Amino acid sequence: MPSVLVLNGPNLNLLGRREPHLYGGATLADIQARCHRTGAELGLEVDFRQSNHEGVLIDAVHEPGPAAIVINAGGYTHTSVALRDALAAVALPTVEVHLTNIHRREPYRRTSFVSEVADAVICGAGAHGYVLALTHLAHLLKREN
Amino acid sequence: MPSVLVLNGPNLNLLGRREPHLYGGATLADIQARCHRTGAELGLEVDFRQSNHEGVLIDAVHEPGPAAIVINAGGYTHTSVALRDALAAVALPTVEVHLTNIHRREPYRRTSFVSEVADAVICGAGAHGYVLALTHLAHLLKREN
Amino acid sequence: MPSVLVLNGPNLNLLGRREPHLYGGATLADIQARCHRTGAELGLEVDFRQSNHEGVLIDAVHEPGPAAIVINAGGYTHTSVALRDALAAVALPTVEVHLTNIHRREPYRRTSFVSEVADAVICGAGAHGYVLALTHLAHLLKREN
Amino acid sequence: MPSVLVLNGPNLNLLGRREPHLYGGATLADIQARCHRTGAELGLEVDFRQSNHEGVLIDAVHEPGPAAIVINAGGYTHTSVALRDALAAVALPTVEVHLTNIHRREPYRRTSFVSEVADAVICGAGAHGYVLALTHLAHLLKREN
Amino acid sequence: MPSVLVLNGPNLNLLGRREPHLYGGATLADIQARCHRTGAELGLEVDFRQSNHEGVLIDAVHEPGPAAIVINAGGYTHTSVALRDALAAVALPTVEVHLTNIHRREPYRRTSFVSEVADAVICGAGAHGYVLALTHLAHLLKREN
Amino acid sequence: MPSVLVLNGPNLNLLGRREPHLYGGATLADIQARCHRTGAELGLEVDFRQSNHEGVLIDAVHEPGPAAIVINAGGYTHTSVALRDALAAVALPTVEVHLTNIHRREPYRRTSFVSEVADAVICGAGAHGYVLALTHLAHLLKREN
Amino acid sequence: MPSVLVLNGPNLNLLGRREPHLYGGATLADIQARCHRTGAELGLEVDFRQSNHEGVLIDAVHEPGPAAIVINAGGYTHTSVALRDALAAVALPTVEVHLTNIHRREPYRRTSFVSEVADAVICGAGAHGYVLALTHLAHLLKREN
Amino acid sequence: MPSVLVLNGPNLNLLGRREPHLYGGATLADIQARCHRTGAELGLEVDFRQSNHEGVLIDAVHEPGPAAIVINAGGYTHTSVALRDALAAVALPTVEVHLTNIHRREPYRRTSFVSEVADAVICGAGAHGYVLALTHLAHLLKREN
Amino acid sequence: MPSVLVLNGPNLNLLGRREPHLYGGATLADIQARCHRTGAELGLEVDFRQSNHEGVLIDAVHEPGPAAIVINAGGYTHTSVALRDALAAVALPTVEVHLTNIHRREPYRRTSFVSEVADAVICGAGAHGYVLALTHLAHLLKREN
Amino acid sequence: MPSVLVLNGPNLNLLGRREPHLYGGATLADIQARCHRTGAELGLEVDFRQSNHEGVLIDAVHEPGPAAIVINAGGYTHTSVALRDALAAVALPTVEVHLTNIHRREPYRRTSFVSEVADAVICGAGAHGYVLALTHLAHLLKREN
Amino acid sequence: MPSVLVLNGPNLNLLGRREPHLYGGATLADIQARCHRTGAELGLEVDFRQSNHEGVLIDAVHEPGPAAIVINAGGYTHTSVALRDALAAVALPTVEVHLTNIHRREPYRRTSFVSEVADAVICGAGAHGYVLALTHLAHLLKREN
Amino acid sequence: MPSVLVLNGPNLNLLGRREPHLYGGATLADIQARCHRTGAELGLEVDFRQSNHEGVLIDAVHEPGPAAIVINAGGYTHTSVALRDALAAVALPTVEVHLTNIHRREPYRRTSFVSEVADAVICGAGAHGYVLALTHLAHLLKREN
Repeated sequence: MPSVLVLNGPNLNLLGRREPHLYGGATLADIQARCHRTGAELGLEVDFRQSNHEGVLIDAVHEPGPAAIVINAGGYTHTSVALRDALAAVALPTVEVHLTNIHRREPYRRTSFVSEVADAVICGAGAHGYVLALTHLAHLLKREN
Repeated sequence: MPSVLVLNGPNLNLLGRREPHLYGGATLADIQARCHRTGAELGLEVDFRQSNHEGVLIDAVHEPGPAAIVINAGGYTHTSVALRDALAAVALPTVEVHLTNIHRREPYRRTSFVSEVADAVICGAGAHGYVLALTHLAHLLKREN
Repeated sequence: MPSVLVLNGPNLNLLGRREPHLYGGATLADIQARCHRTGAELGLEVDFRQSNHEGVLIDAVHEPGPAAIVINAGGYTHTSVALRDALAAVALPTVEVHLTNIHRREPYRRTSFVSEVADAVICGAGAHGYVLALTHLAHLLKREN
Repeated sequence: MPSVLVLNGPNLNLLGRREPHLYGGATLADIQARCHRTGAELGLEVDFRQSNHEGVLIDAVHEPGPAAIVINAGGYTHTSVALRDALAAVALPTVEVHLTNIHRREPYRRTSFVSEVADAVICGAGAHGYVLALTHLAHLLKREN
Repeated sequence: MPSVLVLNGPNLNLLGRREPHLYGGATLADIQARCHRTGAELGLEVDFRQSNHEGVLIDAVHEPGPAAIVINAGGYTHTSVALRDALAAVALPTVEVHLTNIHRREPYRRTSFVSEVADAVICGAGAHGYVLALTHLAHLLKREN
Repeated sequence: MPSVLVLNGPNLNLLGRREPHLYGGATLADIQARCHRTGAELGLEVDFRQSNHEGVLIDAVHEPGPAAIVINAGGYTHTSVALRDALAAVALPTVEVHLTNIHRREPYRRTSFVSEVADAVICGAGAHGYVLALTHLAHLLKREN
Repeated sequence: MPSVLVLNGPNLNLLGRREPHLYGGATLADIQARCHRTGAELGLEVDFRQSNHEGVLIDAVHEPGPAAIVINAGGYTHTSVALRDALAAVALPTVEVHLTNIHRREPYRRTSFVSEVADAVICGAGAHGYVLALTHLAHLLKREN
Repeated sequence: MPSVLVLNGPNLNLLGRREPHLYGGATLADIQARCHRTGAELGLEVDFRQSNHEGVLIDAVHEPGPAAIVINAGGYTHTSVALRDALAAVALPTVEVHLTNIHRREPYRRTSFVSEVADAVICGAGAHGYVLALTHLAHLLKREN
Repeated sequence: MPSVLVLNGPNLNLLGRREPHLYGGATLADIQARCHRTGAELGLEVDFRQSNHEGVLIDAVHEPGPAAIVINAGGYTHTSVALRDALAAVALPTVEVHLTNIHRREPYRRTSFVSEVADAVICGAGAHGYVLALTHLAHLLKREN
Repeated sequence: MPSVLVLNGPNLNLLGRREPHLYGGATLADIQARCHRTGAELGLEVDFRQSNHEGVLIDAVHEPGPAAIVINAGGYTHTSVALRDALAAVALPTVEVHLTNIHRREPYRRTSFVSEVADAVICGAGAHGYVLALTHLAHLLKREN
Repeated sequence: MPSVLVLNGPNLNLLGRREPHLYGGATLADIQARCHRTGAELGLEVDFRQSNHEGVLIDAVHEPGPAAIVINAGGYTHTSVALRDALAAVALPTVEVHLTNIHRREPYRRTSFVSEVADAVICGAGAHGYVLALTHLAHLLKREN
Repeated sequence: MPSVLVLNGPNLNLLGRREPHLYGGATLADIQARCHRTGAELGLEVDFRQSNHEGVLIDAVHEPGPAAIVINAGGYTHTSVALRDALAAVALPTVEVHLTNIHRREPYRRTSFVSEVADAVICGAGAHGYVLALTHLAHLLKREN
């Protein structure tokens, strides 16, 4: 069973508490449960993590094991060349996810270093975006075999 | 059964023939068939259209009937304030789709007037992106009821 | 009796329904009636039209007949060099009208290709702006004779 | 009878003498007379002033009394945050007027701090623009009562 | 005999009447006649068209048949990603023509989306530019065989 | 007892009346009283002034006497090189104050010519910012002796 | 007794040693002692921390407990969307402090992501700025009760 | 004997005291004396003035009498469209003077609204620049007769 | 027989050797031969030169004799105001030629100082572009007589 | 024997595996061995480290001991003001190294915060760049003694 | 008797012939004569040169001998870092001269690399500007002795 | 024995005399001697040249013979597309050298056209940078054989 690393960046541990008018009421635990459920349906093992540390996220990307990556890099999306380079280095099928539609927010959120190295980008679909991302990766991995 | 307008902009009629290294080998008819199949599974009626004319696309957005919109506005994505205003005026749940990851292409493709009024944006997932978009709209419409 | 072409661009057919907090509650038919009434008072024949098609608007500008033009080019205001060139080519007295004060909205609405070739610009006066525009053209046409 | 402050900024005292190919042959006294005549017709008292001093213009905006403002801020239009703040502070119905179509002139004339706080903007209609502005304010004030 | 599509964009139907100090006195019919004459000399069939509608121009580019394209996209040159994509999709030998030297005009005329996908660009040679374009295409087509 | 000039720029005379959701309910007289009270506690004589005239503010900066300056230059903050030069010329310990956090407002309020010549900048602390500014100057003046 | 988190970013551990012509001679321990002293006077418990790690700073902001925050984010001020989002998420009264007047230094120091979410900003007051920040928070917290 | 208005803007009254490493040790009275001496030699009457008030400077430009203008607009050089318009309106032979070489200073000092309407510009020649300016005007006025 | 100066800038002496995937396989001698042949057919004397020295190119433009100029300024196209001024000074009919379509290359190659003073511009037609340029000049010179 | 800290930033641990067409086939261990060998030859002790954590890199810069620094900051080169400040604070002789020529890559790689505080910069010399950097530091340290 | 190098850049050899509405009717020989006459009056030896070659101008700046420089660098003014560096290297009293007021011309003429290293700049005074420049240098040289 | 062309651009002939605080005290003859010494050690013949003429530098690059190039293009680094094209055309192993760290100087020195075509770039290492450049080329040439 192929494994997918679902990587969450800074402040996503606060979901549910943090600006719910923007990010919705689901907690990160809710999203994790949903990802595990979806993974089970799609035949994917889900390795779900969160960190506020850029270096920890980069280390996680480097770890061998996963067949694909779902990444919501939070605030590092817009500023981290280092994280972008990590994703480019491992060169796995990657889907970038954002809970909100980042194109309707502050101008600096419209630039994503992650998008440059992701295969697909899904934003504005809330927690459901993770489900769509896993669905897409299952679709991609099936096609490769 | 709620209806979804799936609107395709300029040059998408050439799919399969047009720069297949960028856009893949599926034709627009293939995508249409896939949308109808997905719609049937999700309980959505799919009204699938394509036009190279900005005005025809705007007229289509104005037409009463659909409960939601999937739009791949092609080249008008980046230049049409008028199409953006049409989508804002009807204010339906809207998912923007692009076959390619527009963030990895020319700089002028990174600006989308449609994104400003769409709820969610999915790009880089190829023809499968339409399936994801319909899935998300079914999810949204279910939640509203 | 001199004739004035009153040309309305994309989405103005939705007036009254479309974002009324921005555009007010009057429909385009209301504005048309008001323009005919004002024209009658001022001794001007009013040819009132609307289209969502850039090409149709350009064709209309090209048609011989009118002594002057009132134009609310909607979303094409900000993007259409072609419409600007049409107005420059016929070189009639022209007043640009916008229902809203476009200077208080998104940055891309502050640039108007039409303004470069219009004689006068009136914005933010709502439907009454059309009355002011016709009044000004009557004033200009009188002075020319 | 409601009073309207008609405020004229720097160099408008030179009208008639100053670059007549741009600004026309009417003097400021001519425009003042025309405003008084128009005001009389519309049932508006007109308080007509001019100053080359930014501070004097701000003081005038602060003075209690008027029900609405017509302002041609001349060169301060493009540079005065302070005048903009004064207009925002008193929050009266305001019409910005320019004799010329400022969109056809130097790039720095296309930016107006006044437009951000005005209700309507009329430019390029020459001295007749003041008449249109008063007409519009009469229309607005009537509607409010 | 290979066929060349000579495609003319918005406002070119007004040639001869439109700003003759800029565009010269030749009408579009004059240019058409000249193109047919030149085509006959060079052994090229010339399919000469004009439209003010962006969508009609895109449709024309999509039509099968021609071996090469001469395009003067008028105002759409500077704004139409959709037309650019159409030309990229059919990938025929293409020469872009402008009557005037667009580099000596307004800044927004110095950007051409068409240039990115054309093989050669000829501007400022007036109506004679069409003759040069056909000559060049004849040269290219001969070399390919 | 060292004297501090507390200089207030345009529109601050309207405090309490002017956009209270932004600027709070305190009047300038309230702030003046508070400054005198704070000055008395700190052993500073406070010379409190306000003007809407850029030239008057510059003249005030030039006047001999004060040992330090607190300045809230209002709208001139963002536009007045002349006021900045005046402060640079007298080269006194200077604290810039703004009632609101100017970094959360319009982009043109994020540029301050005064900041370039002030020692310290305090913004967003409302009327209390004046107290902090005086406290800091007392601290600075004490250290110098 | 309400607690205030005083958070210090990268390189502030070097104070006293690091470019003293810019940052003064006080060490971080001196500032910490001063903050504790001021806190004691104002009835505030002070939790004083420093880290060179962006993730550690974000974690600290997330920790429950404090009633308010003083933050000197050092170099992360200008680059960290993630830290800004953390502050926005916890939504406590926040004062941003900088030892130097960042508006007189390199252009990239004039942009602060922290300022967007802070209530007040104090810069250029050296170590005394921490005292002013605590004073202001005491003032704010008193007013809330 | 033709008269020349020598107009000095804000802060020039502080010359000799103000940043002498930049502006030199001469006072404005010294420069005035020198201008009178030079004027006497050249057969020009010199009307020498200074004001910190933008409005007073504009009023002075409007006053009838002078045959030519020397202007050192100080900080208003870079910000005053109104002063520029005043100079354009009176359309006299005008020489702009700056004591320092403004091209070697802050970027915002490299933009001069006055330069757009001056005939000649002299900067960096210190107080001697006034002498050169008067010399040039004498030369120009002689040539005109 | 009128003479045409065909002027070639830096690095064009390397043609055939230099990046042939960009510039084609023809040498400068080939192009020279072709120009002489074309000139003979058109009744034009061709003075063909190349230099890597900006000053030599300017001197050549200054030399009396030619009735028209064809110029491929190579790398100086994008940087030489001096060469542009030389062409403006002699004011002869001028056609700018580039072997490649400079609009499809690096951004700095999209700016041409030469285009501002040339009558026509031909790029992307390879060595054949010189033939087109001479053809156009023959056409222009004929029309002038 | 003076010690040199050789500090490697994010993703450099993947060398040899990561995009070898860009970064070459040497691993970080290979480079470390080479640095130790070179250090031995030059009489320098080499302290070789790598981390993906910005904070860890800053801490390492702060540690007392080294006489000089070689730094390849990877992706943090372009984004870390904090790391730049750390290097400025310790003020040791510093050579910045990049394996690739960063000037031939994405635009955001052309900006280096490290370059502002480094003495010398060497890029594009691959793993050999570390040897050159150590050689230069040996040269500098010798000269200082 | 101190010597002044008067250095003239590209195209100035065409004066009198070249765009006389811009540059006046005087030839370079006229200006040279005038400079020699002025030099004689002021006690300065004048070494007057012109070249279209950037390298020749740089060589001339390097030559030992002159006590001061007058330079009109023509088109190299706006593009030559090398010429700027030459002037900086010899560090003589330098006055930059332009015949026209470069601030009223194309935007790229508003940037001068020479201004950064000149002591004074005189533009728009026509040929008389050379006289003013020599006068100023005589004034400077006298003061130095 | 392979030959290396060491090419020096404008003003480098002044080394030792020119701004020694920036460029150090070594003369160009010193550097030449050092290069010859280093070349002898490394088994490289060194052809050392300097010119102030852009064209002479381009001609030198074109000359057949060298196996590699060291280039310090001085002021042409930042402005010469032509020199960049020459280096691209000959496509030899190339190391760019600058005496100073150009990233710590004026903004226009941070852009190098040479860097785009060089293999490696070394700056800020003073005269020693030439030694490092030759060392690197010896390393590269050895690897190629």
